[in-house]
Amino acid sequence: MSDNSLPLVISAPEPRTLDLIFNPPALARLRAGYRIVETTDSGIAGLHNDILADARYIIGQPPISDALLARMQSLRCVFNVETNLINNMPYETLFERGIHVVTTGAVFAEPVAELGLALAINLARDIVDADLAFREGKELWGGDGNRTARLISGADVGIIGFGDLGKALNRLLSGFRTHTRVFDPWLPPSMLIEHGVEPGSLDEVLSGSDFVFVVASVTSENQGFLGADAFAKMRKGAAFILLSRAGVVDFEALMEAVRSKHIVAASDVFPEEPLSLDHPVRALPGFLRSAHRAGALDIAFKRMGDMVLEDMDLMDRGLPPMRCKRAERETVSRMRSKPVDRN
Amino acid sequence: MSDNSLPLVISAPEPRTLDLIFNPPALARLRAGYRIVETTDSGIAGLHNDILADARYIIGQPPISDALLARMQSLRCVFNVETNLINNMPYETLFERGIHVVTTGAVFAEPVAELGLALAINLARDIVDADLAFREGKELWGGDGNRTARLISGADVGIIGFGDLGKALNRLLSGFRTHTRVFDPWLPPSMLIEHGVEPGSLDEVLSGSDFVFVVASVTSENQGFLGADAFAKMRKGAAFILLSRAGVVDFEALMEAVRSKHIVAASDVFPEEPLSLDHPVRALPGFLRSAHRAGALDIAFKRMGDMVLEDMDLMDRGLPPMRCKRAERETVSRMRSKPVDRN
Amino acid sequence: MSDNSLPLVISAPEPRTLDLIFNPPALARLRAGYRIVETTDSGIAGLHNDILADARYIIGQPPISDALLARMQSLRCVFNVETNLINNMPYETLFERGIHVVTTGAVFAEPVAELGLALAINLARDIVDADLAFREGKELWGGDGNRTARLISGADVGIIGFGDLGKALNRLLSGFRTHTRVFDPWLPPSMLIEHGVEPGSLDEVLSGSDFVFVVASVTSENQGFLGADAFAKMRKGAAFILLSRAGVVDFEALMEAVRSKHIVAASDVFPEEPLSLDHPVRALPGFLRSAHRAGALDIAFKRMGDMVLEDMDLMDRGLPPMRCKRAERETVSRMRSKPVDRN
Amino acid sequence: MSDNSLPLVISAPEPRTLDLIFNPPALARLRAGYRIVETTDSGIAGLHNDILADARYIIGQPPISDALLARMQSLRCVFNVETNLINNMPYETLFERGIHVVTTGAVFAEPVAELGLALAINLARDIVDADLAFREGKELWGGDGNRTARLISGADVGIIGFGDLGKALNRLLSGFRTHTRVFDPWLPPSMLIEHGVEPGSLDEVLSGSDFVFVVASVTSENQGFLGADAFAKMRKGAAFILLSRAGVVDFEALMEAVRSKHIVAASDVFPEEPLSLDHPVRALPGFLRSAHRAGALDIAFKRMGDMVLEDMDLMDRGLPPMRCKRAERETVSRMRSKPVDRN
Repeated sequence: MSDNSLPLVISAPEPRTLDLIFNPPALARLRAGYRIVETTDSGIAGLHNDILADARYIIGQPPISDALLARMQSLRCVFNVETNLINNMPYETLFERGIHVVTTGAVFAEPVAELGLALAINLARDIVDADLAFREGKELWGGDGNRTARLISGADVGIIGFGDLGKALNRLLSGFRTHTRVFDPWLPPSMLIEHGVEPGSLDEVLSGSDFVFVVASVTSENQGFLGADAFAKMRKGAAFILLSRAGVVDFEALMEAVRSKHIVAASDVFPEEPLSLDHPVRALPGFLRSAHRAGALDIAFKRMGDMVLEDMDLMDRGLPPMRCKRAERETVSRMRSKPVDRN
Repeated sequence: MSDNSLPLVISAPEPRTLDLIFNPPALARLRAGYRIVETTDSGIAGLHNDILADARYIIGQPPISDALLARMQSLRCVFNVETNLINNMPYETLFERGIHVVTTGAVFAEPVAELGLALAINLARDIVDADLAFREGKELWGGDGNRTARLISGADVGIIGFGDLGKALNRLLSGFRTHTRVFDPWLPPSMLIEHGVEPGSLDEVLSGSDFVFVVASVTSENQGFLGADAFAKMRKGAAFILLSRAGVVDFEALMEAVRSKHIVAASDVFPEEPLSLDHPVRALPGFLRSAHRAGALDIAFKRMGDMVLEDMDLMDRGLPPMRCKRAERETVSRMRSKPVDRN
Repeated sequence: MSDNSLPLVISAPEPRTLDLIFNPPALARLRAGYRIVETTDSGIAGLHNDILADARYIIGQPPISDALLARMQSLRCVFNVETNLINNMPYETLFERGIHVVTTGAVFAEPVAELGLALAINLARDIVDADLAFREGKELWGGDGNRTARLISGADVGIIGFGDLGKALNRLLSGFRTHTRVFDPWLPPSMLIEHGVEPGSLDEVLSGSDFVFVVASVTSENQGFLGADAFAKMRKGAAFILLSRAGVVDFEALMEAVRSKHIVAASDVFPEEPLSLDHPVRALPGFLRSAHRAGALDIAFKRMGDMVLEDMDLMDRGLPPMRCKRAERETVSRMRSKPVDRN
Repeated sequence: MSDNSLPLVISAPEPRTLDLIFNPPALARLRAGYRIVETTDSGIAGLHNDILADARYIIGQPPISDALLARMQSLRCVFNVETNLINNMPYETLFERGIHVVTTGAVFAEPVAELGLALAINLARDIVDADLAFREGKELWGGDGNRTARLISGADVGIIGFGDLGKALNRLLSGFRTHTRVFDPWLPPSMLIEHGVEPGSLDEVLSGSDFVFVVASVTSENQGFLGADAFAKMRKGAAFILLSRAGVVDFEALMEAVRSKHIVAASDVFPEEPLSLDHPVRALPGFLRSAHRAGALDIAFKRMGDMVLEDMDLMDRGLPPMRCKRAERETVSRMRSKPVDRN
């Protein structure tokens, strides 16, 4: 395994572990094809010069100083497997040198989209409270239980943000024949049209939808951009499903919009996680809660390793990575979605 | 409105009403284009001979004797808007005479499929109990709450019965890239293949699926055909979602399979409806309950009227009905799904 | 093979043969599962009473008199494998008795749709004459050769008739993001919408399309219904692709519309087949010719046998046929598409 | 128009022109939003220093020396609207500085894919020679004319190269239910799977397909990589459709494979363009010719301008371009597809 002809990988994937993100056969392939030096965020700076000089890839997002980077002359790519970019390395130098910084967050798109769709139908059909009523012998049968029930099929759907998650959600909706409008100022309108959705302004998406899905990352520009005004623009009785980060909404305003019965809402993310035991959202009718569970499935983590191996294979052959998502020079330092500290 | 040149329709749609199944513009078109004689199941036999002789269509499923039918020499179609066929008219004579018997049950396919899909994801992601835990301050965050979580995307899905509802479910699943197997002995295998699903035996569907959806009508041949043996064949931890009628399963055996933690289950239908307050399914963990609410949405009922008008238009022009589902001479008397007595 | 317990099939499939429409394994299954009595159109009336009394199925479309039919008391279905219905049997009695008359023409839908799509692109891109020019050293390179070139992708497409062939064509177009309008007075508009196409009047389809595909059967009502007026309504330069039967168009008017350069056209069918050697369409520029070759592929014929076997299996079990297309009591005697006399 | 606050664009799009690639409203928007300095490949170096210093975008692919680039300190992007990258600028410095080099070749994907599909069906159904025979009164009717006819529907299809064109072709095939295998060593297999195709080796694609589409660009590594060995591996009677550049095949070997009747072929590209009048491919039976006409449609050129405007808008807002295809630092200098010298 210490075959010095193999490309060298520095592994510092915390809070992930190699066992979390590689299934056993993939881990075996990683170890057979590469020299792996396992370290930690704080340990990387102390690695031997020879190791740093040879390192072709980093798995993880350890802090990298200018000096440290200067010692890594073979580096081709940093694989961020936590998936939220933070400002702890000299991105400008990395890009100048043609070193890729990539994230494996696409693995979460499918599980989050699936839960998000289910949350939306739950809101539309009141599944949770109907089951609780049934447990208590208070269920309403047939049409009596459907006074506010609605369909997603054929509905007006709005999606805010059209990255991997927005695209996955749109794919899951493909059988529902929805009219879907998307707001994403980072994408050209014609690309949205090619995905079968209608580009829209934020106002159009908010005011023209029966279901609004928020899947936009937090950036330096959009923190808290969905506030009381935004919720007021939504249709009476519409559903708001928050799947990315609580940071993009004014959470108090969201709760107030639900409390006033203007909209209903579901969220997988919260202003603090874990949330204080007396937080009012815990008891808010019309609000469906999920404790940041949308993406953290074992099957999702395991796909990260597959993605890493595929892109290493491309880069080993002198090609650019195509599987993971590349950080963009223009936007990398605007990212503000907080990393998780648990898996 | 008493323009005698207009075709005559006898309306006896109970438990539906014309106002339930026609939206106002559609009802206006009905009344503008036809003479409507409104009566009841018990009233039809007492209608004046002239009315019976002129009647081109019946909306409803009133009992019809041989003698009564003999008096209706202009009859072209019986529109069953309750949608479950019962044996209360001389079907053989109707078919001999070329009178169509059609049902409007297709309107329920989309809402039931949507709820069914949501129930499946709820079982896979434990959405109900996770929200309850959250209310109580006992939620598990991130991966800790996902120990048994699974995806529908990419899963092995089984569908039992492939009528309108099975097809609608398959359409909703189209974005999920599932491997879907279908058991339906009334359809040729090549038609299933054309729908992108794999034909399978009942055993293959039960033993090879992570999610089993039951959407088959009750017939004289399949009552209770899903019993303890069937559930034992299912994969450990698989989900069973019952959407058609409780009559196709041995409900006690289903509860036992859930109680033993072999499978999880959700159902929209129950052996008695309403269900006794002390029925054990009310308190059964691993079982998600819906009180026959899957299809009974106002939007679904309103589509019935549109279907009726479209087929009347075809038959008025001497063409066969194409929108509603025709009862089949070979199978009409085998149907055993109980009609509902409320909407 | 003379096992008298096997269901009896009378085979008179001319101009087809059993070897044409069954591949060897299917033919083996047919012979293993049924007693086959092979006869001809003229021979069936002379069959022994016992055979007629036992016959469950007929493969073919032999003439059947009232008297002959009265002798066939076990008959369940006539499988018309030529696929064009003619008025040579007492349909009314067949329907009264619940005997199905079905056709296997769906096998032609895919090959005809494929050729039809190719003919349309050939017209749009002038593929034939461009290849001829190339052979002669007169080709135009790049944009110079594309002065009149158009795309189907994104185009306005019209389809006249939406049976199996229209649906197959629509499926092939699914990747082309066309705006497709359909005229079919025998179908309810909502069914067209469910197929993702827009219902339109004949005028709307003609005047609003860049490509018009004619796939309607000839009936007693639509012979020659596409004449000079119809072609005049088409867009200047639009393409007219005729795939069903020449009987639905005024062929002289079609040629004149092409001659005047108002439209371009392609056709697989002609007023007489074979066509006289001096017919002017042979030399008409802007007209692409195919000698009734669109459907007659061996792979299509062989699928007929599979369809017959699947429906026999259903009917043997007391179920209605679902694979072949059933003749409709209301319309069977209106069909006027001429049968072919060769395969 | 000389508003100095507007961003400055140097336009040198030869062989394109602004009028070719922008429709009038788009050109008006360009001129309203930017200062346009129109020059030529040879003229750019002589532009005034102020202009060079201000230039944010270049439309075209003029030669750029190190010295020239050093004078352009505001440059954000070079829009190559000819679309084939040549080695006439210091790419390494461009990438270091974060200047994008993008191409608008995606506009050709749809028209080329459409023609490619039509060429394939033409080969499968012999449309060209059948029309010629018809003109001459020698046509074969029905099945007689279909001895070698095949379907694309359900066929094994191979695609070599899966860039924009390969993806467009795969989309057009979506209604054909093909089994499609793709060889593209620059892409991770899982991305191919996500597009619904099966990743395959070159040998698997060649030997396992009824139709092989070649849509790969020429690079420094793949010139002439499809030679006699490759054609020998193809199925007897399979069709080879060449759509990208003649440089990837050994054209003599391709002609020989067709001459020997092992395969049939179609090509839009040739070793020399225009081709000598006595080139043997002009008279080769089984070979269908198109004179590099597949992409050069006016509608395609006009989409280039839209793409340019969309990406300028993103970059004006400090975002990366998303609409055009970015040249990759690793591969930009490997590209060898010859630019065209006419439109």
